[in-house]
Amino acid sequence: MKRRQLLKAALGGAVTAAAAGSGAAPALAQGRRELSMVTTWPRNFPGLGTSAERLARRITAASDGTLEVRVFGAGERLAPFDSFAAVSRGEVDMYHAHEHYWVGQSPAFAFFAAVPFGLTATEMNAWIYWHGGQALWDELGAGHNIKPLLAGNTGAQMGGWFGREIAGLEDLNGLRFRIPGLGGEVLRRLGAKAVNLPGGEIFPALQSGKIDGTEWLGPWNDLAFGFHRVVRNYYYPGFHEPGTALALGLNKKLWDGLGESQRQIISHACAAENAITLAEFDTMNAAALEILTYRHGVQLRRLPNEVLRAMGRTSGEVVAEFGAGDPLSKRIYRSFIKARKAAIGWSKYGQRSFNEARALRFKYSD
Amino acid sequence: MKRRQLLKAALGGAVTAAAAGSGAAPALAQGRRELSMVTTWPRNFPGLGTSAERLARRITAASDGTLEVRVFGAGERLAPFDSFAAVSRGEVDMYHAHEHYWVGQSPAFAFFAAVPFGLTATEMNAWIYWHGGQALWDELGAGHNIKPLLAGNTGAQMGGWFGREIAGLEDLNGLRFRIPGLGGEVLRRLGAKAVNLPGGEIFPALQSGKIDGTEWLGPWNDLAFGFHRVVRNYYYPGFHEPGTALALGLNKKLWDGLGESQRQIISHACAAENAITLAEFDTMNAAALEILTYRHGVQLRRLPNEVLRAMGRTSGEVVAEFGAGDPLSKRIYRSFIKARKAAIGWSKYGQRSFNEARALRFKYSD
Repeated sequence: MKRRQLLKAALGGAVTAAAAGSGAAPALAQGRRELSMVTTWPRNFPGLGTSAERLARRITAASDGTLEVRVFGAGERLAPFDSFAAVSRGEVDMYHAHEHYWVGQSPAFAFFAAVPFGLTATEMNAWIYWHGGQALWDELGAGHNIKPLLAGNTGAQMGGWFGREIAGLEDLNGLRFRIPGLGGEVLRRLGAKAVNLPGGEIFPALQSGKIDGTEWLGPWNDLAFGFHRVVRNYYYPGFHEPGTALALGLNKKLWDGLGESQRQIISHACAAENAITLAEFDTMNAAALEILTYRHGVQLRRLPNEVLRAMGRTSGEVVAEFGAGDPLSKRIYRSFIKARKAAIGWSKYGQRSFNEARALRFKYSD
Repeated sequence: MKRRQLLKAALGGAVTAAAAGSGAAPALAQGRRELSMVTTWPRNFPGLGTSAERLARRITAASDGTLEVRVFGAGERLAPFDSFAAVSRGEVDMYHAHEHYWVGQSPAFAFFAAVPFGLTATEMNAWIYWHGGQALWDELGAGHNIKPLLAGNTGAQMGGWFGREIAGLEDLNGLRFRIPGLGGEVLRRLGAKAVNLPGGEIFPALQSGKIDGTEWLGPWNDLAFGFHRVVRNYYYPGFHEPGTALALGLNKKLWDGLGESQRQIISHACAAENAITLAEFDTMNAAALEILTYRHGVQLRRLPNEVLRAMGRTSGEVVAEFGAGDPLSKRIYRSFIKARKAAIGWSKYGQRSFNEARALRFKYSD
């Protein structure tokens, strides 16, 4: 009886409140707040730009329009790499980017995107959400008046496109390869001529023979650029970016002035996009990889163990140097290394072990 | 100049709107709506119950209290397995559970939790968010007046605790092992006496010798139960549940009557918890595994390939039978198999390949 009364009361409450509904009209009466988001990618660039657009729409919709986020693609309002400074100064409200673009401000920003032989997408989440990562990132951001949030992940990437086969370390010698950042530094130390080129210049450089190979992202984005029309060897794994995080960086003063529910709406939209963007990359990469191999006959090749071990060792050195600066960088590096060790320890028995077992030869379905 | 004006206008807008802020008072004036959430776990049960509590708090906070979610742990309002029927009838508003609890309604619900040798956590996300999974799940739920959403994931689990060593298939013969669901059916077909026991009865049964072994979840939850005090062999991988999803199931009539912003708030909170709960399990499992091995001297053992292959083949048969019922179940099964094939295809070069490369022997940090 008592339970029935409780249920009735709950249902009755639901009915009386239903008329209030989503309350679009009262929200308008409260006034809207337009927020600007600059991105470092072209508008609707597959995966990265589309995620920024979705994130903006999510915040706008969940706040019933009281926060209305307007997206500006790369170059529409600012040069992409000016985004950080503009948000820091409050000229725009937030950026959507990879944090390793800001290593000029502090090398430690690299740890919140991806570093060679570092964390996978879900391991990054473990570090940021539960292993002290967010507090350190907040501290790093606060020094620049930025409040950072995880907002997506590309997931695993590929090692890249190579004209020649890589049978051993000697094949990296003198190789003109397009790869930016820490991965580029690793290849440089292994004898390659690592160069950086913006996205739009890669294909022409490959076609004219100015470079011998390139990495970009994964099969989805690589297929769109058409690298397979010039070079045929598609190497794995993507040692240099095992799961690159997307970040939303908000002007901290703006963030601090928001109401609790508005902060929650933005945080949830970011964390939701974090899961959903990774899922999109994984889905689209799987489909594109089939097209590349079955339709275009691309050769998938694994980097030899000797090369991977040298890359691993050199990656460790480069990453340690990035974490060896000021005291905050050192704390970030130590925290990252601890999270990485924990993640590898568990994955050996958990995720990695399952994936290997599932790859054994047995019949599962017709 | 024009850019500066734009910036000024945007900032000006922000300042005038700031007073409205999170608007707690207007929200109260609109009326609050209390929503009941029943869970199939005890209140604050680590990982599962705590995620339900967080989800409720997220929805309440993001909606500024206009949706106020109240959680009832297992047995506080309903017997846990009555949750589905109660939400379906509208006696409570939503449940937080694993969908495989509802296989009595339709075996196809198992696909939206986990099936043996099926999808990992991120692969489940790819299927649900981008590969047609949500539409099929919606259709399955709608037949019972339920709107389902992904709300978390346990991540990889362990194979379980065994008194004796498992050197080959013959060691499964007659083994009295606690394992429910499809995993139990797989072991039964391989000669084991698979039994189901509720959580609270497992430890006594193990101690008295009524069972020879048990699976439960992962190191975090297993450590809390103290199985290591009775049996010493902790086997991996967890073939039977490679990443078990948590679901929020809402009364569909309630869901359809919500405003767009309210539906977005609930969806985002669920997707956010999906990423954050997986990260919590991964973090806590890593720490607990260290305690189990270093402090308690538990033996970690890998199931032999012969056993894993037989488990894989038998899993495929059992899973196919679960997807062989009515036309909707068949469509769900086919969609699941397609998503699984795509995920395995990409993981071979992406995630799995990276994890294997990182496990090669090389020095990364001191």
